[in-house]
Amino acid sequence: MLEKRKPLPIYEAVAKIMDIKVDRETEIVPLKESINRFLAEDIKANHDVPHFNRSPYDGFALRAEDTRLAESGNSVEFEVIESLAAGMVAEKEVGPFQAARIMTGALLPEGADTVIMLELVKTYEKNNKDYLSIKRKQNSGDNISFQGEDAKKGDLLVKKGTIINPGVIAVLATFGYHEVKVAKKPMIGLFATGTELLEVSEELAPGKIRNSNAPMIEAQAARAGAEAKYYGQLPDDIEICYAAIKQALTEVDILITTGGVSVGDYDIMPDIYKRLEADVLFNKVAMRPGSVTTVARLNHKILYGLSGNPSACYVGFELFVRPVIRTKLFSEKPHLRKEKAWLKVDFPKANPFTRLIRGSLSFEEGRLRAEPSGLDKSSVVMSLAGAGVLIILPSGTRGYQKGDEVEILLLEDFEGSKAPWENQ
Amino acid sequence: MLEKRKPLPIYEAVAKIMDIKVDRETEIVPLKESINRFLAEDIKANHDVPHFNRSPYDGFALRAEDTRLAESGNSVEFEVIESLAAGMVAEKEVGPFQAARIMTGALLPEGADTVIMLELVKTYEKNNKDYLSIKRKQNSGDNISFQGEDAKKGDLLVKKGTIINPGVIAVLATFGYHEVKVAKKPMIGLFATGTELLEVSEELAPGKIRNSNAPMIEAQAARAGAEAKYYGQLPDDIEICYAAIKQALTEVDILITTGGVSVGDYDIMPDIYKRLEADVLFNKVAMRPGSVTTVARLNHKILYGLSGNPSACYVGFELFVRPVIRTKLFSEKPHLRKEKAWLKVDFPKANPFTRLIRGSLSFEEGRLRAEPSGLDKSSVVMSLAGAGVLIILPSGTRGYQKGDEVEILLLEDFEGSKAPWENQ
Repeated sequence: MLEKRKPLPIYEAVAKIMDIKVDRETEIVPLKESINRFLAEDIKANHDVPHFNRSPYDGFALRAEDTRLAESGNSVEFEVIESLAAGMVAEKEVGPFQAARIMTGALLPEGADTVIMLELVKTYEKNNKDYLSIKRKQNSGDNISFQGEDAKKGDLLVKKGTIINPGVIAVLATFGYHEVKVAKKPMIGLFATGTELLEVSEELAPGKIRNSNAPMIEAQAARAGAEAKYYGQLPDDIEICYAAIKQALTEVDILITTGGVSVGDYDIMPDIYKRLEADVLFNKVAMRPGSVTTVARLNHKILYGLSGNPSACYVGFELFVRPVIRTKLFSEKPHLRKEKAWLKVDFPKANPFTRLIRGSLSFEEGRLRAEPSGLDKSSVVMSLAGAGVLIILPSGTRGYQKGDEVEILLLEDFEGSKAPWENQ
Repeated sequence: MLEKRKPLPIYEAVAKIMDIKVDRETEIVPLKESINRFLAEDIKANHDVPHFNRSPYDGFALRAEDTRLAESGNSVEFEVIESLAAGMVAEKEVGPFQAARIMTGALLPEGADTVIMLELVKTYEKNNKDYLSIKRKQNSGDNISFQGEDAKKGDLLVKKGTIINPGVIAVLATFGYHEVKVAKKPMIGLFATGTELLEVSEELAPGKIRNSNAPMIEAQAARAGAEAKYYGQLPDDIEICYAAIKQALTEVDILITTGGVSVGDYDIMPDIYKRLEADVLFNKVAMRPGSVTTVARLNHKILYGLSGNPSACYVGFELFVRPVIRTKLFSEKPHLRKEKAWLKVDFPKANPFTRLIRGSLSFEEGRLRAEPSGLDKSSVVMSLAGAGVLIILPSGTRGYQKGDEVEILLLEDFEGSKAPWENQ
């Protein structure tokens, strides 16, 4: 009646999942819709930046050699032959003792090899012509932004797998990407199970609770970069469950069920995995919460059985589903970002298993501090609202004290990490 | 011909903007679409959690007083009268030496005041009836999750102005919010100006550059929680500009122009502000980049003239537009989050003005470290792609050295700060 389960360390469980070669698909989206998507190709400069020699200031473009006698006691006069706004191409070449008025960002005219700032010249009119005089020597190349000085054609600017933030958008726009090749959002199928579950819009009833896991996972999937499709609740009937799961697997690559599907005391999911001929990678992990996590593999598709407890479900998703999503999004750092922090509170009890505490992160005088974001019980959904990190408390015979250095996993982060798990 | 401008310290510029009372609007959205939106009301527990006494384990519910003689040498027998899955309501009251099989999360039956874990009992059949025996004394209340122990009805769970993350979604779902009252996304109007500008899909031409500011601001607006509507480029004709801006102001509360609008050397925007009867709060800020930033106010609407240089435009948006957006989203911490970090590089040059360097943040051994994310020139769009922070280097007569503690502003953050500016 009761199945014996052997708990796997987290690193082994994660390794088994990451061994699965997942498909990666791409699509083209308009630049405007590319924010928060993941680049499916390296972005290289397709032209020099700047792509022409330009003036970084408002001033006058002229020939440095004509200024060689200019000094505080001796002003040199130049005729202003043209005025160049940004975007204009000069019609005239600048000759000896000639200058062109030039605005910030404008293309340097032929002949000129320096720009003198507006504030450093005196301008005047003579015989209906414009002139300026300067009292300062210029060197060839002074005040010019040279072609290619910010980036050379071919330079790698943003790597494949990077999330597209406003700065990346600016780079894409600069290089003319009005459409962007991004990773297609992985589609996750989602079934909730549990005889106690009501949907969110239903009235409470004795013994019943609302299904918070499905909307939560939809949101976690969105945060990770995927989409989730909620198929509803599975009934406690193996034939119906089997048919529903088999059908869903034709539509998605990742399928999550939350909670056990029991007929009486009997969880029917193992039988369903068997009938699907899915390979169960593990069904218990040496951690709290989330120890009751099953992951099975069917070719390149992955089936997750996450705990019905909100916090356990949340943690299971972040540890085991998120890295698969991010791998499909071309990320080279698909796992939650791991950092070090100092505990702000005591955890006096020893842990037989590694614990993952929902925590909040603060920076105090430039140092990372972490503390629990609520009650540490796997049923406590409120602790998730303020959770910005998971605090890792490795198993051991002693507890942890305020001020101890611990490792944390950042939940609201855009970087990720390559391999956070060593021997937990 | 040249307008004299008096640079304002950042804190004064910010204070002038924050003095404007802005409108705040709300709307109702389905739970599923509420992720990353901002709560427009406090979320309180509308019922106790749990809302009934429940079993935290699989086990048997019984009366503690019946176990008082149970010990390792003396087992006590109970008749199992019922089996309670989660979501079920017991049909029978548990009487003396009776027990109900109870699953995790199920409602405790009448009569029972403790749950004994499955692993601690021996079960057997006798005369076609189910029995169990236990060898351990239980106390009343052992292994029961009591009604209200996680949250009491009326408890404040998530504050108005909080961004809705997956954990908040879980809380909302738990309390039956299938629809959520959120702040309406502020709508920002956007005009680009500059004779040198091409749109993103256009081919490069000599002297021309593509307009990266408009897509970048659209993305910055999205990151801040707003939407932006790009109205296109303004021509260098004051009548057309005035009409376009006046029309746009009937549609948006915040209007941004990037770059100067010049007729020859002459910027026409001051005249437009005058004709609109807008009150120019400032037109220069003592900072680099972004010193050429103009903010004007027309009743409760705000007009921004941001620099055409990408980095200056980016910084101007984050410092002066973002806090207004977040205020409209009910945030009490509308500004970029300010923290302390250590410099990873030298900045040997003294700054006459406060500098805001696009930087990347790393955590090293639990400490925040910041370094520039690229070339520090206001024209360099590439430095924005990797920017996670702005490093604040206050003006002064000396430079900064590797290892110096500095303040940073976090760009990719969900918290914000109340008032980051003191005397810069």
